[in-house]
Amino acid sequence: MLIVMDAHATAAQIAHVCQAVGELGYSAHPMPGPTRTAIGITGNQGPIADAGRIARLPGVREIIRVTAPYKLVSREFREADTVVRLGAELGVATPAEIGGAAVAVIAGPCTVESREQMLEVAHAVRQAGAVMLRGGAYKPRTSPYAFQGLGAEGLQLLAEAREATGLPVVTEIMDTETLPLVLSYADMLQVGARNMQNYPLLRAVGRSGRPVLLKRGFAATVKDLLLAAEYILAEGNPNVVLCERGIRTFDDGARFTLDLHAVPLIKQLSHLPVIVDPSHASGRADRVVPLARAAVAAGADGLIVEVHHAPAFAACDGEQALTPPTFAAMMGQVERIAAAIDRPIATPAAALAP
Amino acid sequence: MLIVMDAHATAAQIAHVCQAVGELGYSAHPMPGPTRTAIGITGNQGPIADAGRIARLPGVREIIRVTAPYKLVSREFREADTVVRLGAELGVATPAEIGGAAVAVIAGPCTVESREQMLEVAHAVRQAGAVMLRGGAYKPRTSPYAFQGLGAEGLQLLAEAREATGLPVVTEIMDTETLPLVLSYADMLQVGARNMQNYPLLRAVGRSGRPVLLKRGFAATVKDLLLAAEYILAEGNPNVVLCERGIRTFDDGARFTLDLHAVPLIKQLSHLPVIVDPSHASGRADRVVPLARAAVAAGADGLIVEVHHAPAFAACDGEQALTPPTFAAMMGQVERIAAAIDRPIATPAAALAP
Amino acid sequence: MLIVMDAHATAAQIAHVCQAVGELGYSAHPMPGPTRTAIGITGNQGPIADAGRIARLPGVREIIRVTAPYKLVSREFREADTVVRLGAELGVATPAEIGGAAVAVIAGPCTVESREQMLEVAHAVRQAGAVMLRGGAYKPRTSPYAFQGLGAEGLQLLAEAREATGLPVVTEIMDTETLPLVLSYADMLQVGARNMQNYPLLRAVGRSGRPVLLKRGFAATVKDLLLAAEYILAEGNPNVVLCERGIRTFDDGARFTLDLHAVPLIKQLSHLPVIVDPSHASGRADRVVPLARAAVAAGADGLIVEVHHAPAFAACDGEQALTPPTFAAMMGQVERIAAAIDRPIATPAAALAP
Amino acid sequence: MLIVMDAHATAAQIAHVCQAVGELGYSAHPMPGPTRTAIGITGNQGPIADAGRIARLPGVREIIRVTAPYKLVSREFREADTVVRLGAELGVATPAEIGGAAVAVIAGPCTVESREQMLEVAHAVRQAGAVMLRGGAYKPRTSPYAFQGLGAEGLQLLAEAREATGLPVVTEIMDTETLPLVLSYADMLQVGARNMQNYPLLRAVGRSGRPVLLKRGFAATVKDLLLAAEYILAEGNPNVVLCERGIRTFDDGARFTLDLHAVPLIKQLSHLPVIVDPSHASGRADRVVPLARAAVAAGADGLIVEVHHAPAFAACDGEQALTPPTFAAMMGQVERIAAAIDRPIATPAAALAP
Repeated sequence: MLIVMDAHATAAQIAHVCQAVGELGYSAHPMPGPTRTAIGITGNQGPIADAGRIARLPGVREIIRVTAPYKLVSREFREADTVVRLGAELGVATPAEIGGAAVAVIAGPCTVESREQMLEVAHAVRQAGAVMLRGGAYKPRTSPYAFQGLGAEGLQLLAEAREATGLPVVTEIMDTETLPLVLSYADMLQVGARNMQNYPLLRAVGRSGRPVLLKRGFAATVKDLLLAAEYILAEGNPNVVLCERGIRTFDDGARFTLDLHAVPLIKQLSHLPVIVDPSHASGRADRVVPLARAAVAAGADGLIVEVHHAPAFAACDGEQALTPPTFAAMMGQVERIAAAIDRPIATPAAALAP
Repeated sequence: MLIVMDAHATAAQIAHVCQAVGELGYSAHPMPGPTRTAIGITGNQGPIADAGRIARLPGVREIIRVTAPYKLVSREFREADTVVRLGAELGVATPAEIGGAAVAVIAGPCTVESREQMLEVAHAVRQAGAVMLRGGAYKPRTSPYAFQGLGAEGLQLLAEAREATGLPVVTEIMDTETLPLVLSYADMLQVGARNMQNYPLLRAVGRSGRPVLLKRGFAATVKDLLLAAEYILAEGNPNVVLCERGIRTFDDGARFTLDLHAVPLIKQLSHLPVIVDPSHASGRADRVVPLARAAVAAGADGLIVEVHHAPAFAACDGEQALTPPTFAAMMGQVERIAAAIDRPIATPAAALAP
Repeated sequence: MLIVMDAHATAAQIAHVCQAVGELGYSAHPMPGPTRTAIGITGNQGPIADAGRIARLPGVREIIRVTAPYKLVSREFREADTVVRLGAELGVATPAEIGGAAVAVIAGPCTVESREQMLEVAHAVRQAGAVMLRGGAYKPRTSPYAFQGLGAEGLQLLAEAREATGLPVVTEIMDTETLPLVLSYADMLQVGARNMQNYPLLRAVGRSGRPVLLKRGFAATVKDLLLAAEYILAEGNPNVVLCERGIRTFDDGARFTLDLHAVPLIKQLSHLPVIVDPSHASGRADRVVPLARAAVAAGADGLIVEVHHAPAFAACDGEQALTPPTFAAMMGQVERIAAAIDRPIATPAAALAP
Repeated sequence: MLIVMDAHATAAQIAHVCQAVGELGYSAHPMPGPTRTAIGITGNQGPIADAGRIARLPGVREIIRVTAPYKLVSREFREADTVVRLGAELGVATPAEIGGAAVAVIAGPCTVESREQMLEVAHAVRQAGAVMLRGGAYKPRTSPYAFQGLGAEGLQLLAEAREATGLPVVTEIMDTETLPLVLSYADMLQVGARNMQNYPLLRAVGRSGRPVLLKRGFAATVKDLLLAAEYILAEGNPNVVLCERGIRTFDDGARFTLDLHAVPLIKQLSHLPVIVDPSHASGRADRVVPLARAAVAAGADGLIVEVHHAPAFAACDGEQALTPPTFAAMMGQVERIAAAIDRPIATPAAALAP
């Protein structure tokens, strides 16, 4: 930590700050400069919780923090990439993994709407090479009057789709009450962007031990995202996959501004896998495929993409859903992009029984 | 709703869209223009849920929505200002209200730390004219290693402060599990910025019937905030106070960019009271007072301000807490500003027994 | 400046960085910490231009700059408030000043459209208490097909309005070619938000010595704004008034998000006067008045407001223009707000001859 | 254009608006709805300039514009991709083109510093496959005390580098005064992000007829960028290449947030080529390469990348410059990504004489 003093700070004020730092158990290193003095602090084992006390002392202009406030998620804590394995707990036929050499694609409808829809889409995306299914049973919607998902019935339809395809499934969890139910159906728990800083929920999914897909909040920095993941790891659950899905900016050309720079940045700062959701970022099906290619080219470990067999009749977000043929075309393109950076595309581990 | 067709859309495509609109039960009004045709839709009783279906039809370029997606919170639904009364349920000595002619100031520490701290601050802010106490027992913190609040013990200390001062209290609620406990202590439930779109929590505080202080999310538009409030009103609870507390922008001069334009905008769109939190927006005590004055001048119905008797030793956010003397000075300034727009400052309804 | 080393930086890397710092003529102060070493730098007389060299050395993780990169505009360089005097060069009847105790209001149409319009609005705003006129002769418009101003003819109409009212005028300057012409008509040169970082223009208005109204760019931090002003002061022109006029954010409730926190922040960092433009920020006449009140309450030294005698027929930005009666009402409210913080409203120094 | 009336608008107000629309020469189409009436407008040949007049009429709630305000740059105006040819005017040995099938890479130092530097970098990037050189002679710097470029001497060194390599050069133009000089040296004129809305400059480069590289402003929407290009095309110069280089957001992980969604969006809306600058967006050399790959994967027609033979000693922006070996490695990766979407990488048309 660095304390920057006012240009007019007196020697007594500087001495007082140094003393206060000492009383907190740290060492102070005053560095006089031409216009002002800065005071370096050493001896701390992590972020200095009581920085606020220092900031209020007379003559202090600014506090600059140096130590990263996260630990378990950091690349410095763990050098090797984390690989998250999916499907083990509930015993799916073809388990998947995210974070290894292969680029993993998760696909499915925004919302589970019916048996026919879920199965048709599930078979189509497996056929095209998805290694995991997505589908919302509980949907966070900005308006209370929008369709909120089928709930428990949606979970059962997801389970049927898993049975039929052998693929693990990920679905969103919105509160701790439904967690036990969701845990009996989902191979991976999605914490949505709106809940990225819902700390009781982060702790609960952390305690569950089940793999977690943690989406970046609309207004979260990468540091905020890593700190949210830290809540999960701090509960003993290392199986976290991060997801970049776009941030809120002034730009009105897309639903959200996809921040692909976050991909190499996260890779530097953390050992956790990172995937990208081009569907929610763009909001328009005809611009999802270029973003999917770009995400893989940037180094993402996977994609999560919305697919619907009849987007014009989707219960939600139909404007951004790919049709099965477009998704299959996307998979072909993404596979070529991955190959260009020497990564294979993950494929279902076992052939599906006829 | 307005459907904008591509410049090259064919007559058949236009006719097809009109037919689809008709099948959904609405009326289509094609309006040919020099470069493209637009199609107006009428006959809907609210936002058109199936707009996505139309957006996918061949030749459709864009869908423009016209009807506001909220209803119960809107000024059109209810012309008169809502006045939220506080303290009735738990029987405080000096109930308060927000949304009437008088500007109400809520004050207290960021976090309840100890009996001494809570009581000292509570007496000081009552003395200076606050009509309601604030204090966090459960604190949402970006880092899992930061102080998370005293929990149930903090609630009891809040209750003691209420008893001692006669003022109602507001405290943050972070999940539905602790709701019953918090309801037995809090005159008003605060839903924090990070939970503004935690819909199960919004529904639960809605069902509780207890007054709610709903803070705007960092990345929420005013429309998003109104829709979040709509969740609470839709559960039958009309006692909602909205709170502007700053949004995330590129500007790095403050913790958040306080959006005071939201105050007159909300007043136009909604009948709900709106207050402003200058403490979290600025993040620096020495700039809280000018923002407090500005908020009242902009037409806010109240303020919520952090006060600490020894900010340098605060457990959290000490950099932004006012000292009791500064808070008293702020109250004097705010009272003069309010008078300049012909509004009184609310004062505790009853004198406190000696 | 502070150099933060990687956690795994070797002793040799640290020594190498210290040596490089020494070769640049500064002193290095290594501070070993529990996870990484930081190196403080002293001996610099200003920002370290060659920081990039250090940042590339092996083992360096991050460079943190401490010294503010501006000098002449800073409060540390000059303690006392700058007061900018307007009208002296061209000899107006009732000179004005900005930055003193009194709050100065500049008003007039967005664009000079005709003699009748300019004179009618000029008389109306003087009557209501404005001490300076505004009016665009050269208009920067986002679209090349929008009305671009009357040019030289507009300048002449401005001069007539000055003659008729005795008030100084401010008008926008868009390039150095028209500067000589504009200098013969304008008491103050406005550099618009789009040109805040047009450095040749900043230098030219700096060399002119004429007072400058420098508007904050849509995407400029307060530091960027101060550095833009530094360009003008560095040319020997201390007569700069800063103007907060809203920044670009995700919020879609206003044209721009007015950042009133910038007012007290600028007052702390700089001795230059700061005024606020509520008209461009809001974009809607019915929300201009509350923002004007808030700006004065926050400590602004003045306002610049758009007024049109027939907004429905304005050549540009009619949606945000106040009518003369609304402007007069605003002046009454603003005067009361100013009085509440013990500041008078500036009034034209001399009565106008009949 | 669509006029949305207040819910409480009277029949007389609606009739009045329809009449006003008629008086402006357009046709009004009232569409009564359940809560409010909307009025469609047809008959306009472009954006309705007098929309502000309508917006002020009693009972009008909102105006929604439908027609895109740009024309010459739009894909609807010109279906086929524009290909910009570079080097013809000044007769370079190996002309280049941007916007065709091949992906073109522009490279060179941020700033021209010396003959040795410029030539060394120029040879290195040509060797690695760049088809055009970049180098700043006039540098817009946020601080007046930062290095501002070599000026005319820099232009001469650029010309030497062109002679030595046979490649065309692009350099930034900051004002109209230096335009004649720059035109005698530069094959392409760069208008920087800070000058994207410097309209006199846009018009001047438009009149010059020379190819223009137009960089997106920090706070510009894609629509703003297209309108800025429209200024150039409206002067008769169709040779414009757009450049995405990152926008200002709350995210602090990069200098700017690269908006790769803009690439497919621009491709849909406009026939102009679009390239990407990953260097300024990221600000860190070690994250430039993944962004370069992502940009090409998203469909960009080219890249502009900063390369320096000794970044640690660069006069500006050394933190983001690639070394020649890293640039060569990037070219290899980018070529593979381009091949994965069936695009070649452009190579200098003619071998350089030994």
